Amino acid sequence: MNKNFVTISAFFCALLLATGAAENKVPEGVWTIGPRTLPPPSAASDAMRKAILKTPAPDVEATNKLTPQTRAQWEAFINETDARAATRARTLAKNLSVTVEKDKIGGVNVYRVTPAQIDPKHKHHLFVYLHGGAYIVYSGEAGTTEAVLIAARLKIPVLSIDYRMPPAYPAPAGINDVVSVYRQLLKKRTSASMAMGGSSAGGGLTLASVHRFKQLGLDLPGALYLGTPGVDVTKTGDSRYINEGIDRILVSWDGIPFNALKMYAENYDLKHPYVSPIYGDFSGFPPTYLISGTRDLLLSDTVRTHRKMRAAGVIADLNVYEGQSHGDYLAWMDLPESREHYAELNAFLLRYLKN
Amino acid sequence: MNKNFVTISAFFCALLLATGAAENKVPEGVWTIGPRTLPPPSAASDAMRKAILKTPAPDVEATNKLTPQTRAQWEAFINETDARAATRARTLAKNLSVTVEKDKIGGVNVYRVTPAQIDPKHKHHLFVYLHGGAYIVYSGEAGTTEAVLIAARLKIPVLSIDYRMPPAYPAPAGINDVVSVYRQLLKKRTSASMAMGGSSAGGGLTLASVHRFKQLGLDLPGALYLGTPGVDVTKTGDSRYINEGIDRILVSWDGIPFNALKMYAENYDLKHPYVSPIYGDFSGFPPTYLISGTRDLLLSDTVRTHRKMRAAGVIADLNVYEGQSHGDYLAWMDLPESREHYAELNAFLLRYLKN
Repeated sequence: MNKNFVTISAFFCALLLATGAAENKVPEGVWTIGPRTLPPPSAASDAMRKAILKTPAPDVEATNKLTPQTRAQWEAFINETDARAATRARTLAKNLSVTVEKDKIGGVNVYRVTPAQIDPKHKHHLFVYLHGGAYIVYSGEAGTTEAVLIAARLKIPVLSIDYRMPPAYPAPAGINDVVSVYRQLLKKRTSASMAMGGSSAGGGLTLASVHRFKQLGLDLPGALYLGTPGVDVTKTGDSRYINEGIDRILVSWDGIPFNALKMYAENYDLKHPYVSPIYGDFSGFPPTYLISGTRDLLLSDTVRTHRKMRAAGVIADLNVYEGQSHGDYLAWMDLPESREHYAELNAFLLRYLKN
Repeated sequence: MNKNFVTISAFFCALLLATGAAENKVPEGVWTIGPRTLPPPSAASDAMRKAILKTPAPDVEATNKLTPQTRAQWEAFINETDARAATRARTLAKNLSVTVEKDKIGGVNVYRVTPAQIDPKHKHHLFVYLHGGAYIVYSGEAGTTEAVLIAARLKIPVLSIDYRMPPAYPAPAGINDVVSVYRQLLKKRTSASMAMGGSSAGGGLTLASVHRFKQLGLDLPGALYLGTPGVDVTKTGDSRYINEGIDRILVSWDGIPFNALKMYAENYDLKHPYVSPIYGDFSGFPPTYLISGTRDLLLSDTVRTHRKMRAAGVIADLNVYEGQSHGDYLAWMDLPESREHYAELNAFLLRYLKN
């Protein structure tokens, strides 16, 4: 390709961008943002910068093409993803000397995830963990990776709930499972001794469950953990546009995330607090720790939740990491940023959980 | 322009983007991010969404072309900007019943900015305000706008320091001015009764000054306010790339901001903590309130500062608002977001300032 071609292309390209609003009928007030370059984040840790340096730019189109179209394709996608993730979780548990035992509480499948050593300060605490995966993947052992990491890093006992999911079980099955387990737990321990939380859909499900606990008049957990939570099934929030093709994990909202969430929410209006918990009432919510990153497709979900909580008088602690995509602290768990994150989460829980 | 043209243009455009890395010699590891659309932030307040709906997409090229090239051009730019800003500040003070009196402390020009009513809880407090403006504009009364707003909203007495700036006075003149005033203040009141802070360069100067206070062994203020602070003179941080052409206020780093900062930093290495305070040691810093937004060119500056403070054990409270560009809370001061911001800042100061 010669220089003239590039110059001509650049001319057409600029012309297209300049006229794009009219030709493509971009709705009034919608900005067209030009292409840009993004270097590896030199303000992140050296290890993270090097890891991103080796990562090709996320490909929106290619990623969205991977979206399953039929029920059979979804099931194949789920099975493959879960098989890989279960192996990862098992290996991690072994390496970190964490035991993972399957059990049933209130008729719901759970995993008891126990570190080799429990911090005496956490002796009477329990972390009730809800895994992520867009309410579609990471059932069974596949959903225990972050539970294992939390158990090992925080030295706290974890109970990971293997809640039911689509395609077979859309909302509110998952919320009902969380309620069933939580009711049983409340018979044996104080609500204030329990943390509840998870990443991505796990953060969203945490909030939806607390909305439901409030309706049911249940005592609320002592603290919440929202790791880059998905709190809105609709395509709302700057970061879903700005960080498209920048978030190396989710890449784009329009492919697998949105289509999986549609299945999850099929019984509800998309703004019902059970499926889009950002639209619920946050008054009385427990102290909450939130984390996101500058490349996170769900940065807006995270900061919107933080603000709604603060407006409702809730203690809410927002943490945003330079260079992080959706859940990088979990995907790249050996980075200094990941260690810092779980240390901060631990300090937060030690401050707010009671015995 | 017909549809065929658009199709052909789109083809060339895609081709250009696909081959851009090779043709334009983008360094290895630098991602090329494609164009995108960005709707008004439907998760912001209605008033803010409507305000952005009326705002054309920021134009990077046109904005950068406004950068003055000669000393005379800089001076003309400064004079015009300051004249407009001074009028705005005077009008605001009048409308909010805030008195602004010029004075001198330690040989430095200051403005005593006093609200009609002082909250009894702030009776013994003082907010030492450092204005923004890339260390180049907003000298004199022009620098009192946010001081007036803080006085009115928080009902707290404010002292706005009219520190010296380039082109005549690069760093460390401004820091020395802050030190001179602060030393005088310490003779009459406790350090813990004073808040210090400001927006943009005012946030950066706040941090640089506290670095200097530590060197001099001075007692530190009781709390800091960092409004979308500029903490790094180098082009570091994701948001300076990601939010280029998205931040409606700063628009682009490469034009006026960077060229003004170069003048400010001319006596220093660009990573010296006096000019890029992010590279300093934050241990022992006072409790600090930070605000940024999802469209802010300095979002990374804000979150990097937050993390460095937390890593140093400092109490630091990060707030990120959906849809906000650099300092929108000040530019659009009547929006609900702006009121929420200053109410939060006030609650923070009431928690940490002492009498």
